[in-house]
Amino acid sequence: MRRIDIDRVGIKGILHPVRVRDRSLGEQHTIARFDMAVSLLHHFKGTHMSRFVEIINGHDREIDVASFEAMLVEIVERLEAEAGYIEMHFPYFLEKRAPVTGAKSLMDYQVALIGEIAGTKAASRIKVIVPVTSLCPCSKAISERGAHNQRSHVAVTVRTRGFVWIEELIEWVEAEASSPIYGLLKRADEKYVTEYAYDHPRFVEDLVRGVAARLDAEPRIAAYAVEAENFESIHNHSVYALIERDKGMAAA
Amino acid sequence: MRRIDIDRVGIKGILHPVRVRDRSLGEQHTIARFDMAVSLLHHFKGTHMSRFVEIINGHDREIDVASFEAMLVEIVERLEAEAGYIEMHFPYFLEKRAPVTGAKSLMDYQVALIGEIAGTKAASRIKVIVPVTSLCPCSKAISERGAHNQRSHVAVTVRTRGFVWIEELIEWVEAEASSPIYGLLKRADEKYVTEYAYDHPRFVEDLVRGVAARLDAEPRIAAYAVEAENFESIHNHSVYALIERDKGMAAA
Amino acid sequence: MRRIDIDRVGIKGILHPVRVRDRSLGEQHTIARFDMAVSLLHHFKGTHMSRFVEIINGHDREIDVASFEAMLVEIVERLEAEAGYIEMHFPYFLEKRAPVTGAKSLMDYQVALIGEIAGTKAASRIKVIVPVTSLCPCSKAISERGAHNQRSHVAVTVRTRGFVWIEELIEWVEAEASSPIYGLLKRADEKYVTEYAYDHPRFVEDLVRGVAARLDAEPRIAAYAVEAENFESIHNHSVYALIERDKGMAAA
Amino acid sequence: MRRIDIDRVGIKGILHPVRVRDRSLGEQHTIARFDMAVSLLHHFKGTHMSRFVEIINGHDREIDVASFEAMLVEIVERLEAEAGYIEMHFPYFLEKRAPVTGAKSLMDYQVALIGEIAGTKAASRIKVIVPVTSLCPCSKAISERGAHNQRSHVAVTVRTRGFVWIEELIEWVEAEASSPIYGLLKRADEKYVTEYAYDHPRFVEDLVRGVAARLDAEPRIAAYAVEAENFESIHNHSVYALIERDKGMAAA
Repeated sequence: MRRIDIDRVGIKGILHPVRVRDRSLGEQHTIARFDMAVSLLHHFKGTHMSRFVEIINGHDREIDVASFEAMLVEIVERLEAEAGYIEMHFPYFLEKRAPVTGAKSLMDYQVALIGEIAGTKAASRIKVIVPVTSLCPCSKAISERGAHNQRSHVAVTVRTRGFVWIEELIEWVEAEASSPIYGLLKRADEKYVTEYAYDHPRFVEDLVRGVAARLDAEPRIAAYAVEAENFESIHNHSVYALIERDKGMAAA
Repeated sequence: MRRIDIDRVGIKGILHPVRVRDRSLGEQHTIARFDMAVSLLHHFKGTHMSRFVEIINGHDREIDVASFEAMLVEIVERLEAEAGYIEMHFPYFLEKRAPVTGAKSLMDYQVALIGEIAGTKAASRIKVIVPVTSLCPCSKAISERGAHNQRSHVAVTVRTRGFVWIEELIEWVEAEASSPIYGLLKRADEKYVTEYAYDHPRFVEDLVRGVAARLDAEPRIAAYAVEAENFESIHNHSVYALIERDKGMAAA
Repeated sequence: MRRIDIDRVGIKGILHPVRVRDRSLGEQHTIARFDMAVSLLHHFKGTHMSRFVEIINGHDREIDVASFEAMLVEIVERLEAEAGYIEMHFPYFLEKRAPVTGAKSLMDYQVALIGEIAGTKAASRIKVIVPVTSLCPCSKAISERGAHNQRSHVAVTVRTRGFVWIEELIEWVEAEASSPIYGLLKRADEKYVTEYAYDHPRFVEDLVRGVAARLDAEPRIAAYAVEAENFESIHNHSVYALIERDKGMAAA
Repeated sequence: MRRIDIDRVGIKGILHPVRVRDRSLGEQHTIARFDMAVSLLHHFKGTHMSRFVEIINGHDREIDVASFEAMLVEIVERLEAEAGYIEMHFPYFLEKRAPVTGAKSLMDYQVALIGEIAGTKAASRIKVIVPVTSLCPCSKAISERGAHNQRSHVAVTVRTRGFVWIEELIEWVEAEASSPIYGLLKRADEKYVTEYAYDHPRFVEDLVRGVAARLDAEPRIAAYAVEAENFESIHNHSVYALIERDKGMAAA
C-alpha cells in the first residue's frame, strides 16, 4: 500500500428524495443528487463506502435540508475522518406570476448546497442557476429594428454569514437580467417581457457585474462567484463571464 | 436458452476517425460515433461482438463514408445475419462567410448516417441538425419594439433517391429560418442578421412547414422527417414541431 | 402559409413536481419532465403553446399520475386537436433490502409514461430503465478465475391491458439479470451478490430474451420493447440488444 | 456601468478541427471544443468577442497543438488583456494491440489542454481521462468465486516541466489499474484480461495512490490532480477518490 494521503474519497451520484425550506410554502418536495466524501490519511487503506449510503438512508425517507449540516458532522464522525464534503443538487420550484395578467406557473431552478468540514470548522455554499433573457446592447444599438436575444444561465455561488433564501438569490439575478423568464405567459405578458427586454439590453459583462455589485453591497454575503453564459441566438457557441470575490471576513 | 428472435444485437458508442465527402474541399477529417447491430435468429445463442470492432478497424485508419454501404454489406456477411444496422454520428464543418463583410469561419453541424440492410435490400438515411435563429412572429406583432428570438435546432432526416449533399440539406433549412447563424460576425454582419431575423419572423410551425415544402418539391427526396426545437428565450422550456412523410415511391 | 399538416407541435422539457402511485407507500413525490404535443391540421396557422403550460399548472401543485389520462383528453379538447401526445419522465424510488442483512436503502429507477390519443382512442405505454449487473458467460467459461461484469441498463417499454405496477416490471427485469443492484450492501451482502452474479452469467442476448419470455407469458402485456445495454468493463463501448413485439390483440 | 474587474470573459463551446502530435503517427486529426477567455479591467465596458473566433479561424483549417501556446499569447495581445485562458477538449486515439493475439484497434481517450497566461507568464496543464477496469479487492477476498468489477475513469491533470507525451500519462494510469481496456479483444485476449484483472484487484483508493506515486517520482511533473470514478457494477452510484499535489517548484 502506498502511504499517500487522499484528499477526498467517497460516493458520487446517489439520488434521494429531499424536502427543502421554501419561503412561500414552508417546504417543498424534490429529488437531490448527492456526492459525499471524506479525507483519508496515508495510514488507512480505505474508507467505509457503505456508511455514506447508511447516512443518507438513516434519515427520514425525505431528507430535510436543515439536516444538511448535521450530515456533514455525521460523515466525519462515522467515517472517522479529519475532513468531509457533501454536495447536493436539486431542482427547486418557484411559483411565479406573469408580469401583466398575474397568471401563475411554476418554474424550476437548479440549486446546489456544497458543504465542507475540516476539524470542527464547517462552511457551506449555495449555488443557484437562474435562467434569464439577455438582449444584446450592441445588436440593439447598430440595428434599425430588433435586437438578438437568448436564454442565458446565470450561476451564483455564495458563502453566507447569515440566512439567505434561495428566493433572494434568484431575485437579485433576475433584477439584473434583460428580463426574468416564466413558465406561462399570456399575450399581454409576452408583449410586456419583449418590450422590457428591449428596454434593458445587457452584455454578458453587465450581467455578472450587476449581480456582483448587489452581492458586494449585501452584508450577509461573505464570498461569491457569479458566472453568466449566453446561448447566443446568432452563433453556435456561448459567450461567458465570471467574477469571483472573497470579501475576506470571517464566514458564518 | 430461450428460442426468441432478436431484432438487433451489436455494439454502441465506439468512436473512430472518419473522412467525409465535402462539396468544397473534397473531403474533411472528423470523428464519428458508431452504433452497429445485426438481427439474430432464435436458434443462435449469440452474435460475434468482436467482428463489429474488426470491421471498423479493418478499414483505413480513417473510414471513408463511401465505404459506409460496404460496411453494411460486410456486417451481414461476416456476422451471418439476415439484417444489419449502422448509425454513424459526426460533427461536420462548413466554411461560412459572414453576410456583409464576408469574414470566413467554420461552423459545425451534427450529422448522422443511418443504414439498414435486410437480405440484399439496403436503405440509408441522412440526418442533419441545423442550428438557426428563430424570431417569434407573435412577439413581433404585439410588441411596440423588439421581438424575442433564440437559437433553434432544425433536424432533417431524409431517405434519398439520388445523391444529395449534406450542404444542400443545410441550405434548405437555413433558407426557411428567421436567419442562418455563423461562427464569426463583425459589426456590419451583426446589424444585418439582426434586421434580417426581425424581417423574417417564423413560428416553430413555419420552420417545419417551410422545410417540408422544399422536401416535398425535391424529387431526390423519397421520405423525410423534419423537427424543430426552439430554446425559447422567454421560457425555461422549448417549443417543438414535427412533420414526417413518406412519398411512397421506390427509394434509391 | 404552407398548407401542410403537422404531426406534432407542442412543448418540450418542462419540469414539474408530481405524485406517483407506489405499491408500498401509497404514493411518492418526485419530479417529472414533460413533453406535450398535439397534431395540427393544414388550415391552422399555429397552436396555443401557453395552454399546455396552463394544463400542467391547472392541476394541484403536484400532478397525480391518475390524472395522466385526463390530461391527454384535456390537451386535445383545449387545443382543439385531433390527436395528442404526452411524455412524462421521472425518477422513481423503491426501498430495497440487501439480500442477506436486510439493510434498507432507496434505489432510483428512471420511468416514463408515454400517452397518445387520436380521436377518442387513447393508449399509453410505461417505460422503466432498470440498472442491473451483467456477468459475461464467455469470460467466465474461458477464464480460470473471475469473469468480467458491469452495470447494465435494461429498458422495458410496455403497452398493457390491465394494471401493471412499475414494481412488477422492475422485478421481471431483475429476475433475469446476473444480479439486481442495491444502494446499500454490507459485507455479507456483497459476498452474496458477487457469488450470485458469478453463478448467473448472462449475455446481453440472454437479458433481452429472458425479459421477453416473461412478457410473452404475461397476459396483461399487449406489446413491448426490451433493450439492454452493457457498459462493458473491458471495453470503452457498450454491447446492446433489442427485441420488439406487438402481441397483436386489442390494447386496454 | 459598474466599475468591477471581470476575472474571465470570452466564448464557450466552439468546435474546430485540430491536428495533435502523436507519438506513433507524427500527428492525428481530431475535433476540439474550445473555451477561450481574457480578464477585463473595471474601466473597460466589454471585450471583443469576435476576435476569439478570428483567432481560431485565422490559423490553418486545422489548428496544430504546437500553436496552442501561440494562441494564448495572441489572445492577450489582440484583446489587450492582462490575462488569458484557453481550454481545448478533444478525443485522442491510440492504436492498441490486444495482449495475447496482438489484434489491433483504436481506442479513444478524452484529452484537454488548459492554458493560462498572466502578463508574460504562461502555464499549461494536460488532462487525460483514461477508461480502465477496476476489480474490487474486498469482493474478491470475501467471495468464494468471482469479484465485482466495472469500467472506471481515471482523470489525470498535470502541470509539467518538460515535454510529456499524452501516451505516457495513459501508460502510467493503465499500469495502476486492474486492467487496461481495449477496443478489440479475441477469446484468448478476453481470458487474459479477465484473469489479469482478477489477479490485480484495486480499490478506488489504490488507483489514485498508485498513479500519484508515479507522478511523485517523475521529475517532469510539477503538479497534478488524480481522480478516479468507478461506475460500480453492484450499485447505481459511483465511488470516487481524488489526490491533488503541487510539488512546489517552478513550473516549465
